[in-house]
Amino acid sequence: MSKTSSGNFFEDFQVGQVIRHATPRTVTSGDQALYTALYGPRFAVQSSDAFAKALGYAHAPVDDLLIFHIVFGKTVPDISLNAVANLGYAGGRFLAPVYPGDTLSTVSEVIGKKENSNGRTGVVYVRSTGYKSDGTEVLDYVRWVMVNKRDATSPAPDPVVPELPAALDPQALGSAVPLLDTAKWDNDLSGADYRFADYEIGEKINHVDGMTVEEAEHQLATRLYQNTAKVHFNQHTEAHSRFGHRLVYGGHVISIARALSFNGLANAFHVAAVNGGRHVGPLFAGDTVYAWSEVLDRSEIEGRTDVGALRLRLVATKNRPCDDFPAQDHEGAYLENVILDFDYWALIPM
Amino acid sequence: MSKTSSGNFFEDFQVGQVIRHATPRTVTSGDQALYTALYGPRFAVQSSDAFAKALGYAHAPVDDLLIFHIVFGKTVPDISLNAVANLGYAGGRFLAPVYPGDTLSTVSEVIGKKENSNGRTGVVYVRSTGYKSDGTEVLDYVRWVMVNKRDATSPAPDPVVPELPAALDPQALGSAVPLLDTAKWDNDLSGADYRFADYEIGEKINHVDGMTVEEAEHQLATRLYQNTAKVHFNQHTEAHSRFGHRLVYGGHVISIARALSFNGLANAFHVAAVNGGRHVGPLFAGDTVYAWSEVLDRSEIEGRTDVGALRLRLVATKNRPCDDFPAQDHEGAYLENVILDFDYWALIPM
Amino acid sequence: MSKTSSGNFFEDFQVGQVIRHATPRTVTSGDQALYTALYGPRFAVQSSDAFAKALGYAHAPVDDLLIFHIVFGKTVPDISLNAVANLGYAGGRFLAPVYPGDTLSTVSEVIGKKENSNGRTGVVYVRSTGYKSDGTEVLDYVRWVMVNKRDATSPAPDPVVPELPAALDPQALGSAVPLLDTAKWDNDLSGADYRFADYEIGEKINHVDGMTVEEAEHQLATRLYQNTAKVHFNQHTEAHSRFGHRLVYGGHVISIARALSFNGLANAFHVAAVNGGRHVGPLFAGDTVYAWSEVLDRSEIEGRTDVGALRLRLVATKNRPCDDFPAQDHEGAYLENVILDFDYWALIPM
Repeated sequence: MSKTSSGNFFEDFQVGQVIRHATPRTVTSGDQALYTALYGPRFAVQSSDAFAKALGYAHAPVDDLLIFHIVFGKTVPDISLNAVANLGYAGGRFLAPVYPGDTLSTVSEVIGKKENSNGRTGVVYVRSTGYKSDGTEVLDYVRWVMVNKRDATSPAPDPVVPELPAALDPQALGSAVPLLDTAKWDNDLSGADYRFADYEIGEKINHVDGMTVEEAEHQLATRLYQNTAKVHFNQHTEAHSRFGHRLVYGGHVISIARALSFNGLANAFHVAAVNGGRHVGPLFAGDTVYAWSEVLDRSEIEGRTDVGALRLRLVATKNRPCDDFPAQDHEGAYLENVILDFDYWALIPM
Repeated sequence: MSKTSSGNFFEDFQVGQVIRHATPRTVTSGDQALYTALYGPRFAVQSSDAFAKALGYAHAPVDDLLIFHIVFGKTVPDISLNAVANLGYAGGRFLAPVYPGDTLSTVSEVIGKKENSNGRTGVVYVRSTGYKSDGTEVLDYVRWVMVNKRDATSPAPDPVVPELPAALDPQALGSAVPLLDTAKWDNDLSGADYRFADYEIGEKINHVDGMTVEEAEHQLATRLYQNTAKVHFNQHTEAHSRFGHRLVYGGHVISIARALSFNGLANAFHVAAVNGGRHVGPLFAGDTVYAWSEVLDRSEIEGRTDVGALRLRLVATKNRPCDDFPAQDHEGAYLENVILDFDYWALIPM
Repeated sequence: MSKTSSGNFFEDFQVGQVIRHATPRTVTSGDQALYTALYGPRFAVQSSDAFAKALGYAHAPVDDLLIFHIVFGKTVPDISLNAVANLGYAGGRFLAPVYPGDTLSTVSEVIGKKENSNGRTGVVYVRSTGYKSDGTEVLDYVRWVMVNKRDATSPAPDPVVPELPAALDPQALGSAVPLLDTAKWDNDLSGADYRFADYEIGEKINHVDGMTVEEAEHQLATRLYQNTAKVHFNQHTEAHSRFGHRLVYGGHVISIARALSFNGLANAFHVAAVNGGRHVGPLFAGDTVYAWSEVLDRSEIEGRTDVGALRLRLVATKNRPCDDFPAQDHEGAYLENVILDFDYWALIPM
């Protein structure tokens, strides 16, 4: 019997099954420096200990999406090594601040499973939870992936499809942010004057800048997250894939788009929840990513006068500027060159 | 009104205007590790806590040019987003050691402004100062950039051109270096026997080695510094620029040349001042950087017997070895493939 | 006389000569983060402070091969700047754990020297030892390199060829690993159930995955180690070399192969000794590395019931999957596309 893991196939997943993933990972200031070098984020809270401490944090917290990628990366060898596609995310909540020195690990529960009509693949729904070594939950989210069956003739299981919320309740947001003394929030240092009251539902923001992606960059990022999905790393095999190229990890796109969104959303410092997200087109090295945002909703949070919540749609394209806010056509089909449609709650000072 | 910043134009700058820049940035050992990976510097003081502490530092200080790039990067969104060219630097002084954990921010004052005869652009002179969060000044320098006017028909302001020193007075140097116990300076560990007394005015040193630059490298570096200048990152637009390529951040060239200069200047451990600097040609990924130095001056520093100052001219080329010390022709025009002419004071043990 | 080092030639080495190398280097969590980004290792002990502390470490130790590369890099300017080829390693022992904050330096002793029959080159044997600043030895190993003579007419020295062990005695292994409380070893978190008793002599493991190498990646790595060998960095000259490309540092291949070997050897957490190693083919950017392992030997270690030792042969290829375990033909010649043959002792919990 081989000691090499070949990952799990559709038949291997059971609803209710709990998987404790390898490898626990201590997040350090080195990881945060790399994250900065990879994406160029400029949000002051994550960038400056002094800025964060003045507000009430213990230190500058680790970037939310770095946490997401590390928690996610651990699930790949067990969940998506034989994935045909990463279909979507939902119900993601950031639950506690993570500081350099904290160790993260991930546990997943299989919450749904449905064979596709072709009989060769199926969809697996997993809720993954990231923990610190003291047991504090830092993030949980649901994702669903299309996975190959080991054997096309194995019988279809009874379908179990979980109900997923379209969006998180904003009243549940913010546990990763201590109560902030926002009198200390300095708009010059944070990069913009616009706060909660300045954003209106329906407002669209073109983030203007474009960022070209290199093979070395997405590979460094994806290895940093200990994400082992083969499609990101092996040109020898990907040269013969339908794309002919290594595929950039979808989370790399989210982080680029989020960093670009600083230009227009500089004070929206914290990703509090991921309502949903879809990678609607592939990204390859050499492509240039652009992004735009739309304010989908806004909400105060009961018991908090320091920060409010903006529900934001973040759309990313490749090789296509976003001055006309490209997304879907009238029938809901995504326009060519749209690659990401991401729906999240951000917190922003009042 | 757009929430996206489109940067400042020539008309937006007023002499005397003070700009507090975003984003404060805590420098960590992660940043220093990346700096080492990006350039391969081997100066012992910045590389080794043990070496630095033996001499009298609290720890190994952060590399001087990493501080420069971080302080500089913050100014880009406000000063040079619409810059046509970064024309030069002068009067740069390193004022205090920076250690991992220190948070840096930058304030700039507009000290000069002069419209060009074409009526479409002008030159803006800015003095930028980098601070720690406790108010300690760590670096100040002047730079001048050519900036587009928003409206070619707007009237020319009265020209104000600051007087800039050709070189810093060596007696003003060294405040970023504590008094060192240079009896503890170990030439084997530092990499060379040559000290202050061994260098003569007029001496030229070919640094021999060449370093090829990759797109991923200069992008990682420039994002690490949170420098947002579009020309470095967007191949989708730069493909149609006069160069057809992303332009490598000029500071990347300075750091490569400084790292190459270790071979011949291993004990010149500290950049104490930037007398002046010009990027006289563009660098692109795929090019190979070479460098040579000339000793322009040397000076003892009153009250210090530990270190002396060497005024060095550091010239970098691309795709051209420097055994014949290429720079300018008889009429002062830079030779083809010369890309940097940088004049600085370095400290070196007596 | 030039202040620029042109390295040592065959005539410059004397048997018994001791060389203290520049530059001492404090290893930080930033270096470890970069190491993770460069190779994607997933061994739990090096990845997680919490996992390592539970077992009895002070913290997560720095990756063994990162230590190797840093200790090795320091020797390059003195030993192998004029090397024609890095012929092999032997007798390498990891002697003490290295934690972030430790400063490493290297001392080498010339232990052998033999001119080649062509009269133009010779082989130099060096034992290099890495130290912490408190004098603790962390690693020693022998390597031999083919070095150019400065002058082909200089007389051949009496040959001195050291006796080198084919393999380290397993009873000498393990001093870099404290006695571990392996009751705390969690197979879910470490990534596999297989421990010492589960591996048999002669067993071969295909590590399945492939990793494509980029120029920016190997240059970042090699500079991180302050390794200055010209062949890795200068495309302007290497374009005219026999290969036409920059050569990837051999240690980069070892680290990629070791990281790939996690899939099949997840619990073999520590490289305790390097019995021998040869780079049998060159690697260039764009190539994809694969690897397989063979268990050559296994041994308990007297006085230890926590860990045992596996002697492993780690073979890496380029652009060639390893399902048929490629290595040498019947006459001992390496098959095309085999690039590394590495023999080491790993420790693994009982």
